[in-house]
Amino acid sequence: MSASMKAEATDSNAIAGMARAARIAARTLAQSPTALRDKALWAAAHALREQKDTILEANAKDLAAYTGSEAFRDRLTLTAERVEGMAKGLEDMADLSDPVGRILTEWTRPNGLKIRRVATPIGVLGVIYESRPNVGADAAGLCIKSGNSVILRGGSESFHSAQAIHKAMAAGLEAAGLPVDAVQVAPSADRKHVADMLAASGLIDLIIPRGGKSLVERVQTEARIPVLAHAEGLCHTYIHAAAEPQMARRVLANAKMRRPGICGATETLLIDNAIASELLPEIVNDLRELGCEFRADERARHIVPGLEPAADEDFATEWLAPVLSIAVVDGVEAALAHIARYGSGHTEAIITSDESAATRFLNGTDSAVVMWNASTQFCDGGEFGFGAEIGIATGRIHARGPVGLEQLTTFRYEVLGTGQTRP
Amino acid sequence: MSASMKAEATDSNAIAGMARAARIAARTLAQSPTALRDKALWAAAHALREQKDTILEANAKDLAAYTGSEAFRDRLTLTAERVEGMAKGLEDMADLSDPVGRILTEWTRPNGLKIRRVATPIGVLGVIYESRPNVGADAAGLCIKSGNSVILRGGSESFHSAQAIHKAMAAGLEAAGLPVDAVQVAPSADRKHVADMLAASGLIDLIIPRGGKSLVERVQTEARIPVLAHAEGLCHTYIHAAAEPQMARRVLANAKMRRPGICGATETLLIDNAIASELLPEIVNDLRELGCEFRADERARHIVPGLEPAADEDFATEWLAPVLSIAVVDGVEAALAHIARYGSGHTEAIITSDESAATRFLNGTDSAVVMWNASTQFCDGGEFGFGAEIGIATGRIHARGPVGLEQLTTFRYEVLGTGQTRP
Repeated sequence: MSASMKAEATDSNAIAGMARAARIAARTLAQSPTALRDKALWAAAHALREQKDTILEANAKDLAAYTGSEAFRDRLTLTAERVEGMAKGLEDMADLSDPVGRILTEWTRPNGLKIRRVATPIGVLGVIYESRPNVGADAAGLCIKSGNSVILRGGSESFHSAQAIHKAMAAGLEAAGLPVDAVQVAPSADRKHVADMLAASGLIDLIIPRGGKSLVERVQTEARIPVLAHAEGLCHTYIHAAAEPQMARRVLANAKMRRPGICGATETLLIDNAIASELLPEIVNDLRELGCEFRADERARHIVPGLEPAADEDFATEWLAPVLSIAVVDGVEAALAHIARYGSGHTEAIITSDESAATRFLNGTDSAVVMWNASTQFCDGGEFGFGAEIGIATGRIHARGPVGLEQLTTFRYEVLGTGQTRP
Repeated sequence: MSASMKAEATDSNAIAGMARAARIAARTLAQSPTALRDKALWAAAHALREQKDTILEANAKDLAAYTGSEAFRDRLTLTAERVEGMAKGLEDMADLSDPVGRILTEWTRPNGLKIRRVATPIGVLGVIYESRPNVGADAAGLCIKSGNSVILRGGSESFHSAQAIHKAMAAGLEAAGLPVDAVQVAPSADRKHVADMLAASGLIDLIIPRGGKSLVERVQTEARIPVLAHAEGLCHTYIHAAAEPQMARRVLANAKMRRPGICGATETLLIDNAIASELLPEIVNDLRELGCEFRADERARHIVPGLEPAADEDFATEWLAPVLSIAVVDGVEAALAHIARYGSGHTEAIITSDESAATRFLNGTDSAVVMWNASTQFCDGGEFGFGAEIGIATGRIHARGPVGLEQLTTFRYEVLGTGQTRP
């Protein structure tokens, strides 16, 4: 009987027991060769395909019991294509380079000691997610690749789907001869497991919540463990007086409307007063044609009559929808002040041909990602070249912005001497 | 009336109000030129010297009220020399290079987007420390240099000393035209402030406790904010079969006895069975001459009769004193297993001439710092070349090992485009 099974037997400390078993597995995983971890990913992809029917049956059980909204039901639904997508995702991860063991920096001290910082796995991660069952496979894959153990806790609505997907991940680990305790799922749909994970200080090293604002905020408030997450992406695009008008129109249309529902979508346009009367009418036309609505401040409504007025709280709203808040501002400092007041620390962009204005904007925001002449929708692990991401972080330590494989590692110092003693 | 003074007026949320004011100050500090932050350090050093008598009077008040142990009283005591040491420490920090604004890495995407990671201050730090009043000046200095605001909470026994030192730090900020809210001290000796700091999620970004194990463990258990710290330094030196005997003796004597009370001191000797009968008697002689006592396992006592026997808990004890636990082990894996069981994740060393054994040991420990043929007492920010340190971290994210100025920064991504939109 494995340690994780023992833990399941006494439910009161299920998570603690699982985390201890995960820690032991993590030691093996951390020292495993790249090839074995990649083999586990390939084998898990194979198992997902092979067990597709079982996975879809488990998902059907979840769907049969589900009574909530249609949008949520769609996210909860698995299809043959979605299972294939998970499998392909794991194979793609196997092709990425190993984030473990990289020498991050090295130097030599005057006494001859060589010191180097080497990337190592973090240890035991906890991933708490909502409806989409594929998050379980993606997160497990990223953790295996980066040498971390993970405890997965999906939404209670997707419990059977999560268990079925987990079986395929475990088969992958087994095929590679890696410890199956490296990937575990909460043993029941009991919400108590979430609280236990958030309290597992010393047992789980890092919590990553994937889901809506209320889930993330609950995790951030209750966790006694560091959390990598973003609660919202209230992103701003500031069109400066020296913006090239056509570029500004193209970039803003993309930043708002390419996919209005992603966290990197622009929610608020800050347009400089010096250019607004010329440019804002065109921008409103562009976006209106794409199906966008507006919430505009008084100055914007003076330039484009008939826009719906913005209440103060509109500027604090992450629309995640084809709605754009608009404020006319006087210069970079006013734009920065607006962002400091309403922003969520995710991604902000300035459109300008003036380098000094751009530099001031880049230095003056406190956000994880700041852009110059680019669409805020580029805030994405794939677009950054990370290959895969587990989310976006807006916290202030360890990792910010897209969280990819490298961000799932920490480091140790190796000190290489020839018998030095400290004076 | 400053925001921080307003906070003091309504004590129930003193820390929250201070942290909000600190956040505003941090924005200014983060964007301030290096020269201004250095000027603040120089001016604070000057103020410490100028206000020396006032500081010593405040300290005398603390000492008069103090009724505890002599060792603690010594740590609590300030002298003219110790005040000068604080001032000199600030001047040394001013001479270090600016950790803010470094470009950590940069790359270009196929679409032409330039992405770079730029070091930025973390934001608002909380430093909770015990008796030594100089920690307040050191921590404030490191935070000013690295562009962070800090809320300091010293031990209640050193309240008047902390207030007096804070006045000098504030004078330094003022002289440089930087916001004085960047460095604040808890407004009373009330222990409630500690709890308020640990709960200030979203207001304080990072907590650094400086003190004994019980303080650090309390902070680690209660904090709803990331913590950089080490609760103990239960460091091991493993003398491998292929160790050069004279090097092993020299390095171990230094690792244990140079300063037995520091966290990087070796607490347990793991000696390989293959070399123990030859080397252990000499090591015991060496250390005995330096005043060291021993707690030895059965196999060690068989080799050196008369050694005091070690109980299991002795191997889990951070002596911080001239006492060495000794265990005889069979090979690298046994040494690693002992460390995994009893270690605190701080610093471990192997002494060997065999590179493959060394590599196995370096990869096989989970600790923040691992050394090959060097004294564990080198685990120190100064010895690493960091110039100054605020402590040693054994957690698994953000920073591990010595925490210097670079570790007090985080980063933002800057994305520089020419009008790119996401397909």
